[in-house]
Amino acid sequence: MYALAFGIGTKNARDEWLEVYFPAPLFHPEPALVDTVASVVDYQGGNVDIETDTTRLQTLSQIWSGNSHASLMTQLAKTVRPVVVTILETDGKPQTTPETYLKLHLLSHRFVLPNQQNLDGIFSLLPNVAWTDQGAVDLEEIDQRQLQARMAGTVLEVAAVDKFPKMTNYVVPPGVRIAHSARVRLGAYLGEGTTVMHEGFMNFNTAAMGPNMVEGRISQGVILGAGSDLGGSASTAGTLSGGGEIYITIGKNCLISANAGTGIPLGDNCTIEAGLYITPGVIVQIMDEHKNTVKSVKARELAGQDDMLFIRNSRNGAVECRTNRKAVTLNKTLHGHN
Amino acid sequence: MYALAFGIGTKNARDEWLEVYFPAPLFHPEPALVDTVASVVDYQGGNVDIETDTTRLQTLSQIWSGNSHASLMTQLAKTVRPVVVTILETDGKPQTTPETYLKLHLLSHRFVLPNQQNLDGIFSLLPNVAWTDQGAVDLEEIDQRQLQARMAGTVLEVAAVDKFPKMTNYVVPPGVRIAHSARVRLGAYLGEGTTVMHEGFMNFNTAAMGPNMVEGRISQGVILGAGSDLGGSASTAGTLSGGGEIYITIGKNCLISANAGTGIPLGDNCTIEAGLYITPGVIVQIMDEHKNTVKSVKARELAGQDDMLFIRNSRNGAVECRTNRKAVTLNKTLHGHN
Amino acid sequence: MYALAFGIGTKNARDEWLEVYFPAPLFHPEPALVDTVASVVDYQGGNVDIETDTTRLQTLSQIWSGNSHASLMTQLAKTVRPVVVTILETDGKPQTTPETYLKLHLLSHRFVLPNQQNLDGIFSLLPNVAWTDQGAVDLEEIDQRQLQARMAGTVLEVAAVDKFPKMTNYVVPPGVRIAHSARVRLGAYLGEGTTVMHEGFMNFNTAAMGPNMVEGRISQGVILGAGSDLGGSASTAGTLSGGGEIYITIGKNCLISANAGTGIPLGDNCTIEAGLYITPGVIVQIMDEHKNTVKSVKARELAGQDDMLFIRNSRNGAVECRTNRKAVTLNKTLHGHN
Repeated sequence: MYALAFGIGTKNARDEWLEVYFPAPLFHPEPALVDTVASVVDYQGGNVDIETDTTRLQTLSQIWSGNSHASLMTQLAKTVRPVVVTILETDGKPQTTPETYLKLHLLSHRFVLPNQQNLDGIFSLLPNVAWTDQGAVDLEEIDQRQLQARMAGTVLEVAAVDKFPKMTNYVVPPGVRIAHSARVRLGAYLGEGTTVMHEGFMNFNTAAMGPNMVEGRISQGVILGAGSDLGGSASTAGTLSGGGEIYITIGKNCLISANAGTGIPLGDNCTIEAGLYITPGVIVQIMDEHKNTVKSVKARELAGQDDMLFIRNSRNGAVECRTNRKAVTLNKTLHGHN
Repeated sequence: MYALAFGIGTKNARDEWLEVYFPAPLFHPEPALVDTVASVVDYQGGNVDIETDTTRLQTLSQIWSGNSHASLMTQLAKTVRPVVVTILETDGKPQTTPETYLKLHLLSHRFVLPNQQNLDGIFSLLPNVAWTDQGAVDLEEIDQRQLQARMAGTVLEVAAVDKFPKMTNYVVPPGVRIAHSARVRLGAYLGEGTTVMHEGFMNFNTAAMGPNMVEGRISQGVILGAGSDLGGSASTAGTLSGGGEIYITIGKNCLISANAGTGIPLGDNCTIEAGLYITPGVIVQIMDEHKNTVKSVKARELAGQDDMLFIRNSRNGAVECRTNRKAVTLNKTLHGHN
Repeated sequence: MYALAFGIGTKNARDEWLEVYFPAPLFHPEPALVDTVASVVDYQGGNVDIETDTTRLQTLSQIWSGNSHASLMTQLAKTVRPVVVTILETDGKPQTTPETYLKLHLLSHRFVLPNQQNLDGIFSLLPNVAWTDQGAVDLEEIDQRQLQARMAGTVLEVAAVDKFPKMTNYVVPPGVRIAHSARVRLGAYLGEGTTVMHEGFMNFNTAAMGPNMVEGRISQGVILGAGSDLGGSASTAGTLSGGGEIYITIGKNCLISANAGTGIPLGDNCTIEAGLYITPGVIVQIMDEHKNTVKSVKARELAGQDDMLFIRNSRNGAVECRTNRKAVTLNKTLHGHN
C-alpha cells in the first residue's frame, strides 16, 4: 500500500474536483488501518478516490476512538466541503485530480524525494484554477464572481491562475522559513533548516535537503544538497522549458552565487562565481594549482564532479574551472532559529 | 466611436476616483448602442466620464431587456459603489482617471496591442493608491485604517502602494496561466496560451502574443511574439528607466534564455544563450558556418533580424552571432491545458 | 532617551510576543513626555517593555487631552489585543521581541539609517511566524488553524513563514511606490521619491535614500544613494550569506543595470553595464580616454570611487573601467507623482 489520505476539496459546478487538501496523509500506511478504512468506505483495491460522508467518518472516529486519527475524523465529519478518501495501492501513473494532489502532498510532507514517484501526465489532471481569497474558483465562474464582489463593495483577490497552488496553504513543514510563499509550489520538498528568501523559487517536484539558503530558482526535478547556498536569481536549468533533458542535482556545500546558473549537475563543494552561467556546451579550461590550463572540456563532461570552482577569467573572458579550496559554510544565525 | 464602458469605482474623501473596474468594456461599439446610452445618460459627444445612478441603469436594463447588456445593467444598479459610464469618441490623450483605466482594460481584454493607443501622460492621471484587502485606499487615510484594523484584532493587508493595480483583480483573460498575479499589471495583453511563471513580469502596455512561456521581465512597450520563451530573470530593456529609446519587439519562436537579456529588437527564431545580455552597443562577431568571423558590428545594427544565435565565446569572451539552426518549440504539455 | 512607543501586538498560547505594531513611535522623545509616561506606567529606567491596560491608557489620554498623543491613547484603550509600551533609554543590544520590532519601525519611519543602531542578535529575538490573513500565527498552531479554515469552507492564506514581516502592514512611508509589498521587509528605509518595482527587494536594515528606482535587490546593510537606479535583478552583495564582510554603499546617480551586480561599494555617478557582476576579486583594466589600458587592479581597490563605468569588453572578455561621462537621470515622470 503506497498511500492513504482523507481530504477536503473544492468542486466546480460540473462536480469536478478543482483541488484537494489532505491534512495528514499516510505513506505506506499500516495494513490494519487500511483494512479498517476499506471496510467502512467499501474499498475494493487499486488506486481510487472515494467520496465519503458524515456517517462513515463518524464510524471511523468511533473505531479509532482515542487516537489522533479519530480526532481528524471527528473534525472532517463537520466540514461543509466534500470529503474524499484517496487510496493508492501502488505508485502508478496518476489518473485523477485528488490522486495528483495527494502525490504533491507526499513531497511537501517529506515522505518522498523528487523524481521518486510517478507523476506522468499530471498537467492534464490538474485543472487550471483561479486561486482567490474565496478559495479555488473555476475559471468559467471567475468573471461573475469578480463582478459580484465589486457590487458588494469588495474586491475578489485573484492571487494566481494556475494548475498548482502555493505549498503553504496546504503544508507548512516544520523548521523552515519561506519569506514569500507565492514562490513555493505544492510538491516542493523543504528539508529542516531551509530558508527560501523572497527571490527564491521552488517548483513542484524539487527539493532543498536542508539546511539551505535558497535565493534562486529550483526548477522542476532539481535537488539541492544539504548545506548549499543558491544565490539571488541563480538559475538551475530545468527540463520543462528551455533546459536540456538531464535532471540537475546540486551536491552538498555548494555555492551558486547571485545571478549565476548551472545547466549541469554538480557534486559536493562546488562554487560558481556571481553572474556566470555554466551551460552544458560551454568550453571550460581546467586549471592546475599554478593557474595553467591542463585541458579544455565541455562543461557536460564535468557533470557531477566535486570540488569545482567555476569563474570567468576577467582578463580574457575564458571560462575556467579550478579546484575549490573554500567550502561554503551557511550562516548559522540565519538557519539556527527556523 | 473608440470605446464605451460601464464601471464600478472607488473614490476618496475628496470625491476623486482612485480606480475603476470595467467588467465588460466595448471596443468600437455599435452606433445604435451608443445612441441608446447617449439618450439615457445625456451624452453630448467627446471623451467623457458620466457618473450615473440606479434609475438610469434600470432604464437601460429595460431598453436592452433580454440581452447580455441588460443583465449587466441590472447588476450595476445594485452596487453600493459609484458607477461611471466612460465614453471615448476618439483615442485622444487621456484626461481622467476612469479614461486611463478604460484604456488599460482594453489592452488586457485583447482589444488593442501595446503602443497602438494614446497613453500620453497617464502617470499624472493615475493616483498612487494603497491596494489592500479592503480595496483601494487613499494614502492619506492609510495610517488610520491600519490602526483601526489592528484595534479590531485584524491586519490591513497592504499588498502594494502603486499607481497600477494587478491585472487579475480586473481582468482574467481566457486560456492563460499566471503563477503569481502580483507581477502582471493591468494593461498587459496576454494572448491565448500564455503562461507567466512566478519569475515572469509584465508591465502595462506589454504583450505576450501567445502561446508563450514568460519567466522573465517584459518591460513597458515590449511585445513578445508567438511561440517565444522568455527564460527566468531574462530582461527586455524598456524605455521608462535605464533602457534606450527604441521599443523592443521579440519575434516568433525566440528563446531568451535564463538570466539573459536584450536591448535590441529581435526577429523570428532568435536565441540568446543563458546569462548573456545584448546591449545595443555590444560589438558582435558575425560568424559563418565554419565558425570564422565574417565581420564585426554593433548589436544595434542587427536589430530585428531573424535566425540569430547569440553566445559569448567561452574561450575568449567575444560576443558572437551565428545562424540559428534550432528553432524553439514550446513544451506543448505546459501550454496545452491552459 | 533613545525611543518610546506604544504598540499593539500578538501573543502565542505561551504568552510570548509574536509581533508588535507601533503606530507612532517617538525617536528621542521629549523629557516631559517621557516623565508623564513613566509616572503612569511605573517606568524605572532602562530598556523595557511594559504591558499596559485600559485604565492607564485612559489616564494618559486625559493628561494629554487635546493633542495627537491623546487621540492615540483613546484608540489604543479600545483594542482587543495586548498593548505594550516599549521604552529604550539607550540604543543597547536588543533583549526582547518588542524592542526589536521598535528598532525596525524606527528604520522604516526614517528616524535612523541602516547600520546606525545596534541590531546585534536580533535573529534569536524574532520568532519564526506564519503570516496569515488572520494575522500572525504561532507555528505550533498553524496546522490546526489551517484545518479549521478548510472545515469552514475557507482557506487560511499563509503569505509567509518568516522572522520578519512585510513593511507595508506596519509602515507606509509617504512619497513612495511599492509595486509588490511582499518584497520589502519591516526595517527598510525608503526615502521620499523611492519606487520599488515588482522585481525590487529591500531587506531589513537597508536604505534607498530617494529618489530611486529599485528593480534589483538591496541586501541587508546596503544603502542606495539619491538618484540611483538599481536595474531589474541587479544584485548588491550582502554580508549575511554569500557576500563578503564589508557593507556595500552605492553613491548618488549610479546605474546598476539589469542583471548586473556589485560586491564592492561604489561612489557617485557610477555605472555597471547590464549583465556584468563586479566581485571584489575581479581584475579590472583601467582605461584612459583613448581606450588604452593604464593599469589593472582588483575591483576591491576601486571601492567607493566616483565616476566609474564598468563594462566587459565584448571583443575580448576583459572587464574594463572607464570614466563615466553620462550621469544617470531618473525619469521624472515615474517619480514626480509618488
